[in-house]
Amino acid sequence: MKKVKVFAPGTVANIGCGFDVMGLTLDGVGDVVAVTLYDDKDEFDRHASASGNAFVSTACTVSVKNNSKEKLPETAAKNVVTPAVSAMAEAFLEKSGSKEALYMEIEIIDKIRPGSGIGSSAASSAAAVYALNHLLGHPFSEVKLVDFAMEGERLISGTAHADNVGPAILGGIVFIRGYNPTDLIKLPVPDDFYCTVVHPHITVSTKEARDILPANVSRKDAIRQWGNVGGFVAGLLLDDMELLGRSVEDVIAEPYRKKFIPGYDALKSRLLEAGMLGVNIAGSGPSVFALSKSADMAEKGRKIMASHFSDQGVGFETYLTQIGMTGARIV
Amino acid sequence: MKKVKVFAPGTVANIGCGFDVMGLTLDGVGDVVAVTLYDDKDEFDRHASASGNAFVSTACTVSVKNNSKEKLPETAAKNVVTPAVSAMAEAFLEKSGSKEALYMEIEIIDKIRPGSGIGSSAASSAAAVYALNHLLGHPFSEVKLVDFAMEGERLISGTAHADNVGPAILGGIVFIRGYNPTDLIKLPVPDDFYCTVVHPHITVSTKEARDILPANVSRKDAIRQWGNVGGFVAGLLLDDMELLGRSVEDVIAEPYRKKFIPGYDALKSRLLEAGMLGVNIAGSGPSVFALSKSADMAEKGRKIMASHFSDQGVGFETYLTQIGMTGARIV
Repeated sequence: MKKVKVFAPGTVANIGCGFDVMGLTLDGVGDVVAVTLYDDKDEFDRHASASGNAFVSTACTVSVKNNSKEKLPETAAKNVVTPAVSAMAEAFLEKSGSKEALYMEIEIIDKIRPGSGIGSSAASSAAAVYALNHLLGHPFSEVKLVDFAMEGERLISGTAHADNVGPAILGGIVFIRGYNPTDLIKLPVPDDFYCTVVHPHITVSTKEARDILPANVSRKDAIRQWGNVGGFVAGLLLDDMELLGRSVEDVIAEPYRKKFIPGYDALKSRLLEAGMLGVNIAGSGPSVFALSKSADMAEKGRKIMASHFSDQGVGFETYLTQIGMTGARIV
Repeated sequence: MKKVKVFAPGTVANIGCGFDVMGLTLDGVGDVVAVTLYDDKDEFDRHASASGNAFVSTACTVSVKNNSKEKLPETAAKNVVTPAVSAMAEAFLEKSGSKEALYMEIEIIDKIRPGSGIGSSAASSAAAVYALNHLLGHPFSEVKLVDFAMEGERLISGTAHADNVGPAILGGIVFIRGYNPTDLIKLPVPDDFYCTVVHPHITVSTKEARDILPANVSRKDAIRQWGNVGGFVAGLLLDDMELLGRSVEDVIAEPYRKKFIPGYDALKSRLLEAGMLGVNIAGSGPSVFALSKSADMAEKGRKIMASHFSDQGVGFETYLTQIGMTGARIV
């Protein structure tokens, strides 16, 4: 029996323009997950305290114990960590030539509130695969871990995207050029680059936020979007914060998803008028993020966000962080 | 009466993934255009040799004289240079507060073959506005010149895009984040970066090549495209030629436009197998370009292109250049 505890950070996917291809890492907010790997079925049966909800396949048996304050699915099969570690177990058996299934228990200790839009599910999946890779003696690269963690995203949203799990594992700002194989680029992060996030307590599932989007976009909108994607990447690499700010524009998802967020347009205007570099919806929402280039400005953004949702009578919490330079890590 | 002669280079728009947002500058191939600015109508009437085809507006009178080997429209109003210099004349009168219309003759001296797909119309428009700006004492910035030259693009394609006129004026590799206002970024050009182009003698008008494209694209294709746009920009800025090469992929225009080019798929495969970084259609075609990182490799590409179109029984010419670092210039 071996056990390790891992922290994986919250993340902001899309960052305005980069739908499904880009995400940044928050600092100091995230999930803590412990993974226990048992020597065999017998040890699992004797020690795993949540074995009653276990998921069983030929490659692994996984039980999930929720010790966080959040409500999570009751069976292991419905928790995002399970398809992630299960994909990893299959790959591990194939790689090692072993036929012995893996027996493990995953304990969710601290949890970003689900449905926040700052990569709650990604943080759990990322932490779980990072922990299991450590317990197995690091058979897989970090990029490969992203592939496994994406299976958790597939479970909750129907699509295996890497814009949250990428940064949750690698840290910093991650760009995903494409899939099959997953082609990740870690982009440089400017000094003094802050992200303020407000999570209004509104329930929007990732799937609901995805289903509201039309399957097709006009070529004109698509061109505008990829102009901004290139502008954002160039802004980061040229350390041109104004260019980066101008590029935080989304004509694909924001027009649809903003309906879920009370007073979104007014909030965005106030934040931009106050000098934020860029403002948009975090991932599929309902959280809203603002980028800024000083701690003072970020704090100004936080106050505007707080007063906005107080006025709306909507509960919320705020996060104010620099970009986290490390992703998943042992704690 | 003042006269100046300007060269403006040929350009490759889109560069595979960056439909309407990106273009590179060829070296040593382009248009030469002379602009004569007369003191008044009387001088124009006495000296302008093509005054019979003139375009007349409240801001300017423009005659166009074609001394190149190519066939061009017979009236000034139908030549791309005219809307370009006309937009500039209007802006100049407004800026200077003058009410005196400008009288000019534009002589097309050397001309990239029209319909080649390497920015033939853009080179003429770029040269004309660059020349007129010089004769007027440089009232406008280069970025503003791009706006004027785009009016030439609007005349022939129905859309005022900057992916050819941008590099034709500024040189290098130009990225267009967006329009209104035109937001141009000059990206760094790696050392030892070559572009080989083959122009098969097939007639495809820019408008025809645009009309074949569907007005809408699937969100999935759009995401793939902007993943590649970001990858290309990051590849250039990180000097990662492999990443840049992987990003030269187009799911928006190439699937439709390749039908105009005999044996396109076979040609592309041969070029990629020979080690080109990326291969795609130049602008709206029918020219095909290949990027490579050595002169030897570029020459290898040129030979493959030549043998391909010889086998197809299609006339062609090839160009092999490094990326041109300067755009329009006085000669």
